[in-house]
Amino acid sequence: MISKKAPTMKDVAKEAGVALGTVSKVINGIPVSDKNREKVEMAIKNLNYKVNTYARGLKTQKSNLVALIIPDTINPFFAAFTDHIESALYKKGKKLLLCCADGIPQKETDYLNLATNNKVDGIIALTYSDIGKYISQDIPIVVFDRFFENRVIPRVASDNFAGGCLAVEKLLEFGCRHPVYIRFHSVFPGEADKRKDGYLYACSKHHIEPDYLDHVNCDEAVTIMKSFIENHKDKEGNLAFDGVFAHTDYHGYLFMELLRQEGFRVPEDVQVIGFDGICKFGNPQDGLFVSSICQPVEQLTEKCVELLLSDGPSPVPPLTLLPVTYRYGGTTKG
Amino acid sequence: MISKKAPTMKDVAKEAGVALGTVSKVINGIPVSDKNREKVEMAIKNLNYKVNTYARGLKTQKSNLVALIIPDTINPFFAAFTDHIESALYKKGKKLLLCCADGIPQKETDYLNLATNNKVDGIIALTYSDIGKYISQDIPIVVFDRFFENRVIPRVASDNFAGGCLAVEKLLEFGCRHPVYIRFHSVFPGEADKRKDGYLYACSKHHIEPDYLDHVNCDEAVTIMKSFIENHKDKEGNLAFDGVFAHTDYHGYLFMELLRQEGFRVPEDVQVIGFDGICKFGNPQDGLFVSSICQPVEQLTEKCVELLLSDGPSPVPPLTLLPVTYRYGGTTKG
Repeated sequence: MISKKAPTMKDVAKEAGVALGTVSKVINGIPVSDKNREKVEMAIKNLNYKVNTYARGLKTQKSNLVALIIPDTINPFFAAFTDHIESALYKKGKKLLLCCADGIPQKETDYLNLATNNKVDGIIALTYSDIGKYISQDIPIVVFDRFFENRVIPRVASDNFAGGCLAVEKLLEFGCRHPVYIRFHSVFPGEADKRKDGYLYACSKHHIEPDYLDHVNCDEAVTIMKSFIENHKDKEGNLAFDGVFAHTDYHGYLFMELLRQEGFRVPEDVQVIGFDGICKFGNPQDGLFVSSICQPVEQLTEKCVELLLSDGPSPVPPLTLLPVTYRYGGTTKG
Repeated sequence: MISKKAPTMKDVAKEAGVALGTVSKVINGIPVSDKNREKVEMAIKNLNYKVNTYARGLKTQKSNLVALIIPDTINPFFAAFTDHIESALYKKGKKLLLCCADGIPQKETDYLNLATNNKVDGIIALTYSDIGKYISQDIPIVVFDRFFENRVIPRVASDNFAGGCLAVEKLLEFGCRHPVYIRFHSVFPGEADKRKDGYLYACSKHHIEPDYLDHVNCDEAVTIMKSFIENHKDKEGNLAFDGVFAHTDYHGYLFMELLRQEGFRVPEDVQVIGFDGICKFGNPQDGLFVSSICQPVEQLTEKCVELLLSDGPSPVPPLTLLPVTYRYGGTTKG
């Protein structure tokens, strides 16, 4: 455990003569001026400062409860995530307090307060709302996928960038020449954004002109996808693309259904790869909805629990990315 | 709240001069001899006995935690059930402790002990293991679907019998003449067993020869279903049935896939109705996997929470059945 005299981020800022935000940026690997970086690094060295935001929060008096904040358990990815978090916590003698916070921001702050008041040992958060400003330094927390500015929080995610690349590589390997990317994204920044970066990188590498539908998540997804398909038809009704990398399995499935309604065959005319690895009825043997870049849910959840419960200081920067894999799900030629 | 002098089931047994199990049976509506029933009913009247098993367990010192014991959150029905239980508890100021107990019976008894020790206010259990003998009279508990012998426990379920009837009625309405029933069931008795009774009743009512596949749940479901199809083909390869009522959406979907692999068209050649109302990706707007008899998950979960948290004595017998509805999901002609 950390002694009471352990230096804080504030001490580092004071020693370095810079703003607290600058220290946070350096620790998070966000660019600052070389001069400031050197000052901060020197101060960290002088004070023997360890990043320990969440470790400090682990009080000796334990409740053996850990709260999971998640939008819902209806979405199959969230459902699997919840199941594996529960299992990983159980192995460590911890019980899971479940908070389905979608649409009720007050719920998330309620649970953050439980952590502040030692009613729970810590929090694992998979959230798309803007709780960053409510997370104090005292709260032991690990976040999945999301990124909160100016908060040194251990984060876990899949290697989304590599996943974006892999999707394009697979589509090309299976004979596609014009893979497009479609996404409906959250307004909040997160690791999943890098799926697009991976797509763009792979296109550039293979000298392919990128082409994508990139829209904030909304109720009009179907209408927007339909007009994307319409805008990509030539006079003979042929499509300008022959491969689709969808940001999620859900949107990949939706897009495939629309293509089929328009008379196109999947995978013969257009191949589709989604992201997440969602199985029908939840079990691997039931098969996927679409061919997919699969997130390693079990390993991701175990890593979240391991980081939350670890006593020592966390490594810097506290972002752990785990590898994804391609799995055939009927909507590709391989 | 119940006063300390409230008569117990033991008092009733003593007053009636019968065994405790006999009192339990009468209260649960399980047949006993007329003589014993009269004795018990007289004793209940004389003592002014009220069934209050779970109400007695609600101690004044509340944790505001309620544990949900469920096999997993991977199965889409369990996932939706968990989500709605969390929401219903939140409305009552309670937090959800989630126990995914599948395959680990020890976990269930751990959680029952939490209730005994007042670490949780009560338990909602959707379980297919044999925890009946561990449930003491002191534990405030509501069970979904399951039935435990010799335990007076408030139970909530869908009206499975009516659902079985409705499935047959719908298949006949859509032109089927030979509806069969297929199920892979748990070894533990529960309300879901009545789906078969409903099927048999409706067949009898409409003078249809019942025909079914009834098997304990196992890994060989696909093989067993395949041979059922094979055994129902005549020399020309025509099927002896034109409608299927499946015990769950999952098995309905699996059976449909096998029929299609065999070259039969669904719903043109064979119509399929499942049970549960499971939506692809979890949301109603995403559509069902198969046409289905839908369980009212939201109302079921609210009823569980209401019964668990209610202070007064529960009605006798403590079994609440909520109505199901038919919903089109693409595998029927209507």
